[in-house]
Amino acid sequence: MNDLPETRYFSPDPAQRTMALELYRPVADLPLVCPHGHVDPRLFADPNYRFGSPAELLLIPDHYIFRMLYAQGVSMADLSVPRQDGGATETDHRRAWQRFADHFYLFRGTPTGLWLREELAHLFGITETLNGRNAQNLYDQIDDKLQSPNFTPRQLYDRFNIELLCTTDAATDTLAHHQAIRESGWHGRVLPTFRPDAVVNLDTENWPDHIARLSAVSGVEVVDVASFIRALEQRRAFFKEMGAKATDQAALTAYTGRLSAADAEAIFQRALHGRADATDAAQFTGHMLMEMARMSAEDGLVMQLHVGAYRNHNDLIFQQFGRDRGADIPTASEFTHNLRPLLNVFGNDPRFRLILFNLDETTYGRELAPLAGHYPAVKLGPPWWFFDSLNGMRRYFDRVMETAGIYNTAGFNDDTRAYPSIPARHDLWRRAAADWVAGLVVRHMVSEEEGAEMTRALAYDLAKQAYQL
Amino acid sequence: MNDLPETRYFSPDPAQRTMALELYRPVADLPLVCPHGHVDPRLFADPNYRFGSPAELLLIPDHYIFRMLYAQGVSMADLSVPRQDGGATETDHRRAWQRFADHFYLFRGTPTGLWLREELAHLFGITETLNGRNAQNLYDQIDDKLQSPNFTPRQLYDRFNIELLCTTDAATDTLAHHQAIRESGWHGRVLPTFRPDAVVNLDTENWPDHIARLSAVSGVEVVDVASFIRALEQRRAFFKEMGAKATDQAALTAYTGRLSAADAEAIFQRALHGRADATDAAQFTGHMLMEMARMSAEDGLVMQLHVGAYRNHNDLIFQQFGRDRGADIPTASEFTHNLRPLLNVFGNDPRFRLILFNLDETTYGRELAPLAGHYPAVKLGPPWWFFDSLNGMRRYFDRVMETAGIYNTAGFNDDTRAYPSIPARHDLWRRAAADWVAGLVVRHMVSEEEGAEMTRALAYDLAKQAYQL
Amino acid sequence: MNDLPETRYFSPDPAQRTMALELYRPVADLPLVCPHGHVDPRLFADPNYRFGSPAELLLIPDHYIFRMLYAQGVSMADLSVPRQDGGATETDHRRAWQRFADHFYLFRGTPTGLWLREELAHLFGITETLNGRNAQNLYDQIDDKLQSPNFTPRQLYDRFNIELLCTTDAATDTLAHHQAIRESGWHGRVLPTFRPDAVVNLDTENWPDHIARLSAVSGVEVVDVASFIRALEQRRAFFKEMGAKATDQAALTAYTGRLSAADAEAIFQRALHGRADATDAAQFTGHMLMEMARMSAEDGLVMQLHVGAYRNHNDLIFQQFGRDRGADIPTASEFTHNLRPLLNVFGNDPRFRLILFNLDETTYGRELAPLAGHYPAVKLGPPWWFFDSLNGMRRYFDRVMETAGIYNTAGFNDDTRAYPSIPARHDLWRRAAADWVAGLVVRHMVSEEEGAEMTRALAYDLAKQAYQL
Repeated sequence: MNDLPETRYFSPDPAQRTMALELYRPVADLPLVCPHGHVDPRLFADPNYRFGSPAELLLIPDHYIFRMLYAQGVSMADLSVPRQDGGATETDHRRAWQRFADHFYLFRGTPTGLWLREELAHLFGITETLNGRNAQNLYDQIDDKLQSPNFTPRQLYDRFNIELLCTTDAATDTLAHHQAIRESGWHGRVLPTFRPDAVVNLDTENWPDHIARLSAVSGVEVVDVASFIRALEQRRAFFKEMGAKATDQAALTAYTGRLSAADAEAIFQRALHGRADATDAAQFTGHMLMEMARMSAEDGLVMQLHVGAYRNHNDLIFQQFGRDRGADIPTASEFTHNLRPLLNVFGNDPRFRLILFNLDETTYGRELAPLAGHYPAVKLGPPWWFFDSLNGMRRYFDRVMETAGIYNTAGFNDDTRAYPSIPARHDLWRRAAADWVAGLVVRHMVSEEEGAEMTRALAYDLAKQAYQL
Repeated sequence: MNDLPETRYFSPDPAQRTMALELYRPVADLPLVCPHGHVDPRLFADPNYRFGSPAELLLIPDHYIFRMLYAQGVSMADLSVPRQDGGATETDHRRAWQRFADHFYLFRGTPTGLWLREELAHLFGITETLNGRNAQNLYDQIDDKLQSPNFTPRQLYDRFNIELLCTTDAATDTLAHHQAIRESGWHGRVLPTFRPDAVVNLDTENWPDHIARLSAVSGVEVVDVASFIRALEQRRAFFKEMGAKATDQAALTAYTGRLSAADAEAIFQRALHGRADATDAAQFTGHMLMEMARMSAEDGLVMQLHVGAYRNHNDLIFQQFGRDRGADIPTASEFTHNLRPLLNVFGNDPRFRLILFNLDETTYGRELAPLAGHYPAVKLGPPWWFFDSLNGMRRYFDRVMETAGIYNTAGFNDDTRAYPSIPARHDLWRRAAADWVAGLVVRHMVSEEEGAEMTRALAYDLAKQAYQL
Repeated sequence: MNDLPETRYFSPDPAQRTMALELYRPVADLPLVCPHGHVDPRLFADPNYRFGSPAELLLIPDHYIFRMLYAQGVSMADLSVPRQDGGATETDHRRAWQRFADHFYLFRGTPTGLWLREELAHLFGITETLNGRNAQNLYDQIDDKLQSPNFTPRQLYDRFNIELLCTTDAATDTLAHHQAIRESGWHGRVLPTFRPDAVVNLDTENWPDHIARLSAVSGVEVVDVASFIRALEQRRAFFKEMGAKATDQAALTAYTGRLSAADAEAIFQRALHGRADATDAAQFTGHMLMEMARMSAEDGLVMQLHVGAYRNHNDLIFQQFGRDRGADIPTASEFTHNLRPLLNVFGNDPRFRLILFNLDETTYGRELAPLAGHYPAVKLGPPWWFFDSLNGMRRYFDRVMETAGIYNTAGFNDDTRAYPSIPARHDLWRRAAADWVAGLVVRHMVSEEEGAEMTRALAYDLAKQAYQL
């Protein structure tokens, strides 16, 4: 039975729990600000978009879920995860769902388990815990709701009380869906984010194709670094015109450093001729981070940097199923040395804003909080990916805030492609924030009044301030 | 006074404590499954084996204890720790014991202190805290019990409620003690584990002697890599025939990577001629981890890997007293890059099982939990050595479980050479597990029923499943 | 309102809180032992020394404070922080103070916020929380007290109940202020500490000037390594004569290793001719750590080593304002490999004592506690700088003590240049220690009596023992 008591996720200590609830209540229903995530803008371009089957909504697109089943020997093909190599996959979504339900116990104590529980309860009125016995019954209940006319992304946008939702879009994207949203006259705010990874990281699969697309979409024939930069600037201007507030880049490390014009050009030409190696790619990414920071200082788009994921760690899964299949593994990160070149040029620039995300919690207190607690340009993003969890948030609060203070952080963003999980994710953060602040109040470190202001800042204000919304 | 209240080691919060006790009680007396440890099989080969003096039982063989006294300036020779260099050591065990008791306060708040307290209470009925004043009195009480006829390892095996105990045995071991146990018709299950470190790690002291012994015991003349591999395969087959369920390897790093046949042979020949260097040894260990994984996939022995101990850090102690004298110091570890070669070949193989142990807690959430939460072959061993402690377990639960779930872990093993401490170690784990699960229940993250199943899995089932017992 | 309840900073759990208070009370008023810090000895040399304005006392010299305001875009010049480059700074301390007060909310939940709250309450009788509205009023109140005749450093020394205060003094310092203190016949114990960084680290700005000063002050013409060592030995002897108990060195890494005499000389000569590079500097620092350890074994001065701060990370701030301006950022550290050369020579030497400080908390349990729990020479200093905070202390206790025990640690030191914050810093530590020990008591891990002894040791005894006071 999924009873969802009002004090869930709070400390069991009665004093702290009572205080947490008191701090949580005023922020529980504040609008959701979603400045970074991966929801597909197509959901909003078509007013009548439908989510498909329960498996298509909740299972098939969610690598948080199928990685865990795969780890226990359930094949991803049996879960209807689409293959890239032409191999067969389960076509019966009810059978895929049954396998998921049979293994749902694996998620006990995990954020994925909590989010799903909240979604089932709040979206579908289901308070039973999913298991092999009730799998088909719950499938029916979910399917029923999905068929109902008021179950469209746009209607959920209002029901979720979303104030703003930023998507993540390739530098080469035409933003046609965003254009359609805009032209539809709908009141929702769905804005693009400029993500140049595929053209900036030379080791992207089929990099030349992405460059060709960049040339086509920008109207700038990319033949050298100068034209590459011009094309990127053209795209940034277009994204900004389309409402973008930020850019986003992912890199294995936080290495930054300007190359000489000659070296940058030599590497770029090697890449155009298919001869760039891993060192070239790393150096060029470091160089382009400098360039992107410069552009941000000039055009005012907030720069986001996500560091530390080793992508596609499992060759077999990559060949069969492609990217984003639960086989990305974090690595240790370093910021103090790596970011120094960038920060020495732009870290004191009032026009520049850099929001950092990472997968190495050891850097929270050691590097990131001291950097954010000194450089005016730097803010820290919330705990990311594997650490977007109750303990992840607790550690984040405990390690970051004493050094950086809460006001050098960027509040919360859900970073999700799972649209229906958005309210659950924000609610978990708000509860975790209220509980952490309550811990400060009951230890007499801050007053109740200060605690209320801090909770609201964490729940709502800081995200808007950090992204200059 | 050592009163041992039933709620010891649980959270002080009344709700969590009550729940922890409720979860703990049903698992408190489950049989002990001990799939990895270092108890000497000689203890069981002779039905009438005696433990010797209190100092021989509790002090002299336990480097957890004498390292702490050494750190405070007590010489190890004064504690009757045997020397390798012919130097004198204390021969009066009562005087050694007195020195230990004089310094027992050093262990306040440490797992060693807790284990000893539990052993004194449960094995010897002693509820006083050891100190300089009661040292000789307690020595007498312990000695009395040790003289009693029912104080043999086999009788304690039943009293401890052990279901299975795996030892750790060199690849070159004849397993004569295991043979004797088997032939004695005794009902206890004491099984060997295949540990090839001394022949696989080329930088082992007197490596050629170990190779000579391997040739002798296997009947395969080891002259090159091919014959080396054949000899290892012969030994694995023999260990398996003798009941082994697993292998175990220790390495400074988790580096894996296949060498070309020619390179492997060149290194091996250099080693045979005493000319291998540190790089050779590291590369060969990485190569042999690939080979051992292949053999595990073929013969079904579970592969254990213990990473990160810098052995024999203190030259002086090593020269005077030899190995395993409390002078092993952990180092930072890396798994994401290092294990990729091995996992890309064997990580998806349903015949293969790899259990990882390590001494760098930063890798729990960053690398190990994501790996175990994706690759079907990988399970995480419990917190090891310095981290086999209440806080070590708390951190392990808090950092591993949200990402890997409990079902990708290997439950508990005690990894001890201190046979009488086995019940205390398992009990501490069961209490820590019950308390952690209780924390989830009182935060309304899992139901009581789920919590009960999780506690039992952590206390008993997972160890059997992980080792395929 | 700053009410300061007696149970502040303790766990909210009623049982633990009650126990914490019981343990805290007997140690709350023990004298303050301050074996390491950066208070200027001038404060005590002149019996009538005055602190200046409230901004001069609390804001201008404290980089913990102005870094946080700088991170939010407040210019350091506007806070009256003195510039090195001749640029203008705010001359009206009231206006600087107003800007500080306007932004004081940034310190919510930070140790700086807590310390200041305690100082305002205990030194100035102010229980309001500083903010923009009461800024000038509070300025007046503080200024009033500062004008009162009994507000001198010497009088505060007694009021703070300081037993001993060690300063930190360059190897080239004449110790004139210490001489003046001594000659004044005042009863306070203010002792120098030998800090040779500027002459030992070849990459110090204007290194040749420091060497020239060393020659002048020691009377030994420094022209080669031999004369350099002689000059250092001369200075150590003088410091010891002046009451010094310890030395202190800061290094980016913990690298140690003896150079051959020829290599050391070659590097030193390159440095004298302005041609030493970064590698030279790192190697020479590692060599000099060996030399300083040797000298410590010989003259009995305790050796302190502070590792891991990347100094002057922000070029612009360094050029404008100089050193120690909140722009030092921690880095990852390594001790197991790096300290082995030094520990293999001196780690077992009963005459030698090494106290380690660091900014990488991951090394607490992994490297530092195992080292301190084995080598008789090694003790661990308390959490340093960014980690001198409630959570920093909690993590330190939880990660260090199970492995090292409390008796291989060095108790507390405040490491501060902010003299009026000393009582608040010690009190925070004593509260954190009492609360941590209370957690052990209520979990039935140690008895109340043991807990009382441990709390006293942490609050007072261990610092005296570690520094052999």
